[in-house]
Amino acid sequence: MSAIDLADRRFTVEQATEDDIPGLAALLADDDIGSTRESPDLAPYVVAFREIDADPQHYLAAVRDEAGDLVATLQLTVLPGLARAGARRLQVEAFRVASSTRGTGLGAALLEWAAAYGAERGADLVQLTSDKRRVDAHRFYERLGYTATHEGFKRALGQPAHSGSAQ
Amino acid sequence: MSAIDLADRRFTVEQATEDDIPGLAALLADDDIGSTRESPDLAPYVVAFREIDADPQHYLAAVRDEAGDLVATLQLTVLPGLARAGARRLQVEAFRVASSTRGTGLGAALLEWAAAYGAERGADLVQLTSDKRRVDAHRFYERLGYTATHEGFKRALGQPAHSGSAQ
Repeated sequence: MSAIDLADRRFTVEQATEDDIPGLAALLADDDIGSTRESPDLAPYVVAFREIDADPQHYLAAVRDEAGDLVATLQLTVLPGLARAGARRLQVEAFRVASSTRGTGLGAALLEWAAAYGAERGADLVQLTSDKRRVDAHRFYERLGYTATHEGFKRALGQPAHSGSAQ
Repeated sequence: MSAIDLADRRFTVEQATEDDIPGLAALLADDDIGSTRESPDLAPYVVAFREIDADPQHYLAAVRDEAGDLVATLQLTVLPGLARAGARRLQVEAFRVASSTRGTGLGAALLEWAAAYGAERGADLVQLTSDKRRVDAHRFYERLGYTATHEGFKRALGQPAHSGSAQ
């Protein structure tokens, strides 16, 4: 467990356990954009949790406040690669801070904690993508030394790319 | 090994081996943007290759033409996650087609092959980032069903985010 000490608050970061799944799913849904993509059924989160937890390349963080309430999360993955002269990347996914805790500085401190986690594991860069509608978040990332050098493309699977006719 | 059959060409896709490292490094450098970030020293690529090869969540593709020449590559990683109701992602990194082979349709066919690889492994979406200067590549991804919904942020490690003074 790590501590994140801010001016007048103390948070803890630890690897999430299966008991955290309801709280983590609630955090993912506590978000204007994310809420439309989450599910009230916890079963798919349990399946995903076990897959994350079984692979030491992933770290799923559960961040708690002084009262022990889950107030933030992110998922870190160490990604080796040949590009950029064999650069190792730290990928950040599913970064959320509870609406009750935004504005405390926790988000910035947690992302710095993540960068240190990556540096300890030999990562040369940290990368993440952020929905283009999250304009405030983009300013936040830029303040923390991130640069939006790339377009983030996504494609849903389950349907062919060239489906000609609507059915 | 898989075959990619185009109108008048046949390519093969197989998992890269250590013998492919010089060819893969050359492919990464065969690119206006990538060339500035690669290294003539192969040692860091060997280290990275072994790390990729040791983890079954990664697939590093070596694509060859009829003559057996290495003409394309990409790295695929299956990423489980809690977000989007436990969506499993297929991450694409370091996608390159040799300049000699661009315009043949191989790039599109290889990316379709990658989507099928992801679908077979239960991925719900494919994601990649592309340097904002690669405008032609962006049109290519859009034709293949990808949408640039996200900003792709990167931060180099090894220096603090808030370095106040230039030195």
